Amino acid sequence: MQIRRFFCESIPETGDEVSLNEGESQHALRVLRLEAGDRLQLLDGRGRVAEAEMLPPPSNMNPRKVRTAVCRILESRVVPRPASQLVLYVAPPRGKAFDLVLREAVELGMAEIHPLLCDFGVSKPEDTPEGWRATLMAALKQSCNPYMPELSRMASLEDTLKARRPCSGFFGASPGAEGRALAKMAVETDLERNGSDWETERRELWIGPEGGFSPAEEKVLLEAGLHPVTLGTSILRVETAVPALAGYVWGMEASHG
Amino acid sequence: MQIRRFFCESIPETGDEVSLNEGESQHALRVLRLEAGDRLQLLDGRGRVAEAEMLPPPSNMNPRKVRTAVCRILESRVVPRPASQLVLYVAPPRGKAFDLVLREAVELGMAEIHPLLCDFGVSKPEDTPEGWRATLMAALKQSCNPYMPELSRMASLEDTLKARRPCSGFFGASPGAEGRALAKMAVETDLERNGSDWETERRELWIGPEGGFSPAEEKVLLEAGLHPVTLGTSILRVETAVPALAGYVWGMEASHG
Repeated sequence: MQIRRFFCESIPETGDEVSLNEGESQHALRVLRLEAGDRLQLLDGRGRVAEAEMLPPPSNMNPRKVRTAVCRILESRVVPRPASQLVLYVAPPRGKAFDLVLREAVELGMAEIHPLLCDFGVSKPEDTPEGWRATLMAALKQSCNPYMPELSRMASLEDTLKARRPCSGFFGASPGAEGRALAKMAVETDLERNGSDWETERRELWIGPEGGFSPAEEKVLLEAGLHPVTLGTSILRVETAVPALAGYVWGMEASHG
Repeated sequence: MQIRRFFCESIPETGDEVSLNEGESQHALRVLRLEAGDRLQLLDGRGRVAEAEMLPPPSNMNPRKVRTAVCRILESRVVPRPASQLVLYVAPPRGKAFDLVLREAVELGMAEIHPLLCDFGVSKPEDTPEGWRATLMAALKQSCNPYMPELSRMASLEDTLKARRPCSGFFGASPGAEGRALAKMAVETDLERNGSDWETERRELWIGPEGGFSPAEEKVLLEAGLHPVTLGTSILRVETAVPALAGYVWGMEASHG
């Protein structure tokens, strides 16, 4: 049986009741047609996962008019954050391809997603549709990731670099660029850890736009301490580069760990 | 300027002329409307990459009736095969998602693609549409990968395991399976190299269907020497698992190399 997962912003104690929000209620009642006693799983996007069961609608109400799904928490637990956190910096590609990237970012457990405005990028600052959050939400439920990634506003590469927190790994790939087929750039460095308030490993993945990072951007990145490594020998689309780079970091961790 | 790439099964010597096949000619003449003197790039899928220029159509022919694009080779080179070869064993997902996987496989430079019939898979043996080859071809040109992967006929996991060649790495991931969210299985081993006729490193990537490898399949894989490792903590779709696992192998190589 397929597990039905729903987002629930605030999951109460075991035994307590909770109402799902409008969108989730609609999905539960109208699409999946859940009934009293049906089991479901709730995610709050901040680590808590609960098993719950549907409660019957108020007896004085026409069931077809019920618009709010109410359920009781049977048990819940908090899934710990992974010790190593991945943070994605990515220049959104045109159109629907970024939805693929967002879904992948959730599946891969990215802690943060920072859309980048790049010289050769095709996105504009106003390109932050509400749809991006809906995509993240759908992916969260599908992948059973207990942690919703933080999605930043789109910002220039330069501003984004300035606002960076210290990290323990700084990897990047320029997925393609016609004419630079074999000059795939991936960058890696260890930055000095200048704080003690973060106990987890934080690894940044930087992925340029289809046209690659510009020479000026490459310079800025290199000055930040990067050195190029290779991700295969062909041109990667961004939706291939993102999981490949995440896997690359995991492979390095596995080797060193 | 975007480079126009075309498939050309047999690329002749520099200075010689060659006709593109019907599909590629159609694309060159009708879609891109290339004219005499325009530059293009040819790939034979076996490592040779050529720069070429369009030749004028025969002077006694109405240009609108020309159906064959003819070009002259200006220069060509053979790109060496990567020292480390990735081989993909994958249970095709339903519908168009496998096209994404095929495109990724080309971008990632997979040497071979073996579609698997698995107990919990959704593909049937007859699911080997001609469209798969068209997808590979399009991805080859887009990614500028000089090597077309070999695409096997779909076969059972058991038959496929029997036909394996020796390899230097045997990795696998079970991308999802409802209810097994955190039981991501990835497998790795070194097999004894029992031949001297292969000089390159050959690494196998095994990706199960959405429902995961069945207990019986896991048993067979484990008996072949695998042990589980982890690719993140959430459920990966197959199109995320394939590049993540390829990147994982590259990351391990980079650490050991």
